[in-house]
Amino acid sequence: MGTITTIRPRPRTVRAIRSVLVIGCGLIGTSVALALRSAGVCVTLADRDPRPLGQAVRMGAGAAWRDDAAPAQLVVIATPPSAVAAVLREAQERGLAAVYTDVASTKARILAEAERAGCDLTAYVPGHPMAGQEVSGPSAARADLFTGRAWALCPHPALSRHALSAVTMLVAACGARTALFAADVHDRYAAAVSHAPLVVSAALAASFAGPDTAALPLAGQGLRDVTRIVGSPPELWRDILEHNAEPVADRLEAVAGELARVAAALRSPGGSWVVSDLLTRGNQGRGDILRAFSGTDVIREKAS
Amino acid sequence: MGTITTIRPRPRTVRAIRSVLVIGCGLIGTSVALALRSAGVCVTLADRDPRPLGQAVRMGAGAAWRDDAAPAQLVVIATPPSAVAAVLREAQERGLAAVYTDVASTKARILAEAERAGCDLTAYVPGHPMAGQEVSGPSAARADLFTGRAWALCPHPALSRHALSAVTMLVAACGARTALFAADVHDRYAAAVSHAPLVVSAALAASFAGPDTAALPLAGQGLRDVTRIVGSPPELWRDILEHNAEPVADRLEAVAGELARVAAALRSPGGSWVVSDLLTRGNQGRGDILRAFSGTDVIREKAS
Repeated sequence: MGTITTIRPRPRTVRAIRSVLVIGCGLIGTSVALALRSAGVCVTLADRDPRPLGQAVRMGAGAAWRDDAAPAQLVVIATPPSAVAAVLREAQERGLAAVYTDVASTKARILAEAERAGCDLTAYVPGHPMAGQEVSGPSAARADLFTGRAWALCPHPALSRHALSAVTMLVAACGARTALFAADVHDRYAAAVSHAPLVVSAALAASFAGPDTAALPLAGQGLRDVTRIVGSPPELWRDILEHNAEPVADRLEAVAGELARVAAALRSPGGSWVVSDLLTRGNQGRGDILRAFSGTDVIREKAS
Repeated sequence: MGTITTIRPRPRTVRAIRSVLVIGCGLIGTSVALALRSAGVCVTLADRDPRPLGQAVRMGAGAAWRDDAAPAQLVVIATPPSAVAAVLREAQERGLAAVYTDVASTKARILAEAERAGCDLTAYVPGHPMAGQEVSGPSAARADLFTGRAWALCPHPALSRHALSAVTMLVAACGARTALFAADVHDRYAAAVSHAPLVVSAALAASFAGPDTAALPLAGQGLRDVTRIVGSPPELWRDILEHNAEPVADRLEAVAGELARVAAALRSPGGSWVVSDLLTRGNQGRGDILRAFSGTDVIREKAS
């Protein structure tokens, strides 16, 4: 394992975000770039694929990065989870910025990979804006994608206060609110609120794939809602799920267990209480979910 | 088992719906009444509980039924599934109308119960408007709840053409479109598009009930959408699920099996294809679901 030996001047405080390099011009990367541009930040963009890069540039998300560019204050790595550590390592070796963050949906494994790859962890703030949607690519990007949303940052023992402060300002510049979690706690929570629900929703939608569509003329808005989050690129989501495998598997097994218990109860006399119990707890959980939103801008979210 | 001996004059054709008695003033019954009133039909209302009855009357859904009332053309039974056969039997014994239908979410078991109870099946058209929502009670009722929606009717060998024709006109008067299914086919389809998704959504929501709410500050719109259909009265839904036990259990076991397979794949090396396969089939199914809606009034449904 190598270590980063490049020494770069690093200001003690960042009073404002002035220059950011965004690596990865998908939905999230391009939306970060658009949000930062709206906040007056100078943004450069990089992507190994020239097509999304060109589209993001044409959308006004920033200028294409050139390898003779001066270092930025911050690099935002907006690649799939499995690419983050290698991109971070290379970016740090090339001294592209003083502070680094990423926007991948999982954190603990990326942090471990970054450590194994010899990255400078003092300057790396693992991050995750909670604002995905079921579309993808730069064309779906929006400057207000993060407005009012939670943006998780995961401080770790090696992290410098300066780097955390800089990324906190970046989050604020994007209109989001910082939420601090340990990486493993973040991953369990993300499995609960995002990764496992995606798989459950996909499993439900998958039951209509292929020849089994005859029932669909009877479908109402409910089936549309419960499957709305399906539709993201399978390869990206496979990567996310594999990067958060154990917490997601735990949640999926719990839901599978509930469904199997209700199925067994429906097939046997005397199982009514099992069915009632699940429905009652479901209503309680739904109430808790709605209460968690009650402080946020519900109308904006409903419209999104 | 008794048989119905009451002989009532029965017109050969019903050219228009003029008078309907709605028994059960919940969300669906009151909405049927409001829709029929909008269409100029004379509606009377009955409910064993005077509170919803009074509320429905105050909302203008119709006049309270009196036992000296002349027979109506049609009776709509809008009770939970387990009460339909007994209410139908009593209504037919009292000669409350010439034609009877119901709006319960399951059909085969009700039809069998009605036959066992000695009901006059020639005059009973099993029905199910596909327009539930996650609210309940007469206060949530709307005259346009069924506009553009499918309304399943389930012809059976004993059914008279006249009765089917009368209920088809009632469906049209409510703004819905008739969809004909055999009762067992209806039940499998309803399990697929409505009953099983409700349980899956409830199982997901239930995982946030109680102490496990710490993750919720990270939740986004996705979790709200996949749990939106949760929130209906548990006792009504227990009744519905138990009335459609086998088809619902089949679907739940299929979804549980998918989730368990993905969980196992995430825990083992080489399981990537299982994860990718489910996500790909999920996207296909989601596409089929959206295509099923493409002919309908998507904007109205989105707004509902």
